[in-house]
Amino acid sequence: MTKQELFLHIVRKESFLCVGLDTDIKKIPPHLLQEEDPIFAFNKAIIDATQDCCVAYKLNLAFYESLGIKGQIALEKTATYIRSKYPDQFIIADAKRGDIGNTSEMYARAFFEFADYDAITVAPYMGEDSVKPFLIYENKWVILLALTSNKGSQDFQFTTDVTGEHLFEKVLKKSKEWATDEQMMYVVGATQAKMLEEIRKIVPNHFLLVPGVGAQGGSLEEVARYGMNSKCGLLVNSSRQIIYADSSEKFTEAARLVARNLQEEMSKYLQWIINAK
Amino acid sequence: MTKQELFLHIVRKESFLCVGLDTDIKKIPPHLLQEEDPIFAFNKAIIDATQDCCVAYKLNLAFYESLGIKGQIALEKTATYIRSKYPDQFIIADAKRGDIGNTSEMYARAFFEFADYDAITVAPYMGEDSVKPFLIYENKWVILLALTSNKGSQDFQFTTDVTGEHLFEKVLKKSKEWATDEQMMYVVGATQAKMLEEIRKIVPNHFLLVPGVGAQGGSLEEVARYGMNSKCGLLVNSSRQIIYADSSEKFTEAARLVARNLQEEMSKYLQWIINAK
Repeated sequence: MTKQELFLHIVRKESFLCVGLDTDIKKIPPHLLQEEDPIFAFNKAIIDATQDCCVAYKLNLAFYESLGIKGQIALEKTATYIRSKYPDQFIIADAKRGDIGNTSEMYARAFFEFADYDAITVAPYMGEDSVKPFLIYENKWVILLALTSNKGSQDFQFTTDVTGEHLFEKVLKKSKEWATDEQMMYVVGATQAKMLEEIRKIVPNHFLLVPGVGAQGGSLEEVARYGMNSKCGLLVNSSRQIIYADSSEKFTEAARLVARNLQEEMSKYLQWIINAK
Repeated sequence: MTKQELFLHIVRKESFLCVGLDTDIKKIPPHLLQEEDPIFAFNKAIIDATQDCCVAYKLNLAFYESLGIKGQIALEKTATYIRSKYPDQFIIADAKRGDIGNTSEMYARAFFEFADYDAITVAPYMGEDSVKPFLIYENKWVILLALTSNKGSQDFQFTTDVTGEHLFEKVLKKSKEWATDEQMMYVVGATQAKMLEEIRKIVPNHFLLVPGVGAQGGSLEEVARYGMNSKCGLLVNSSRQIIYADSSEKFTEAARLVARNLQEEMSKYLQWIINAK
């Protein structure tokens, strides 16, 4: 998907919501455990219930890998289901991969050739040649970790060099030389919303994938205020808050309600850029 | 496996070789493509041919993920095969994972509960809470990226803070507070062998997993000279140089010869610590 296509979906749906499918077999409604593939049954129901409220789905690979082959099958079926039934959705493999060149090439094959994701999250620690193999695919995206939403982000990402620059700023500055804003996005946690102003000075035009709204405590309004640019430039992810809104047989209605509320709030913020035109 | 057990295997086998199973369907001997599971057939043959020359196998997950479910099945079969037939081998999932706490918990389940690896490689960018979930398993190991063997290691790992400390040094210093040298190892590329002297000042007792000997150009002798401690403290990985030594039907003999040569060279270096006792 191109950047312009993504923006058009955002405007049309009045939403920059990404629904995170962090599907945990221990947390899905018990009645689904009778299904042949409970994980896929859950995902399918959540997707059908939320697809008109969101523009993206993020599949958190850890949750599928923890179930071995069975989890991998559910993962593949989910990505294929979204791609075939809702082709306007942007599909993210939240994989946090990154390795030496010949190994990153294999990961790129896995996510962009064998599977058909639009984007993969990548960790920057190993530098340019660990990221570049993902960038040779047309209309596919790298979403590079910049400033994450967790407490541990304090450990290394704020390391200050002799010029006063933080490590996450260095990651942004260096990596934006590796690819355009048509190929690269950044992860910036919603719990770091006030840093978004600084980040926008370095990457004014890039899309940012923002996790951490909801369960992790980030504020959607702050994210929109400090992070939005003239092409929206935000995908805000919510996982647990939506998909585990309810564990009864009515879980899809509860999930839809939370997603709808987030979409309606996003719609308000999107007026800022529509009115500014 | 405990640190002491690993050391005893090293002494007994006179080897600190780790064979990297970066198995690429495009590179294995053509006659194996007739097998029902060519990847597993190749791995099994390589393992049987090299197991008495090495103390560890490292499975590079990218290569298996690039083949989808089929690759995952070959991966599981390979890990299970090593565990059941050669229980003295240390099995590494080279996965470079790392995510927020609840997600790292799922990765830990995947590699230490669902599968039965001894260790997993982890990327440090997201800090303490992305690493800790892997540390609750008894006799299981985190192998944290410190200084990698690739060109891109220059991009961020050498970032110098106001005190003159490099990022990779900060990673070593901080992370060694999270776990003992009975639970944590570090990745240090063989192409950075001269840095091993500095690294040993920070982590004198930890095991280091050293990739980059062979195809990537690192020198085994330098690694041993600068990196070895009184309990060896090294696992030196070689992948392509061993597993693709030959592509004819005699590939196992060629692989064994390379592994044997490396083991014999290692045996010499191990005399340094045995003689020092």
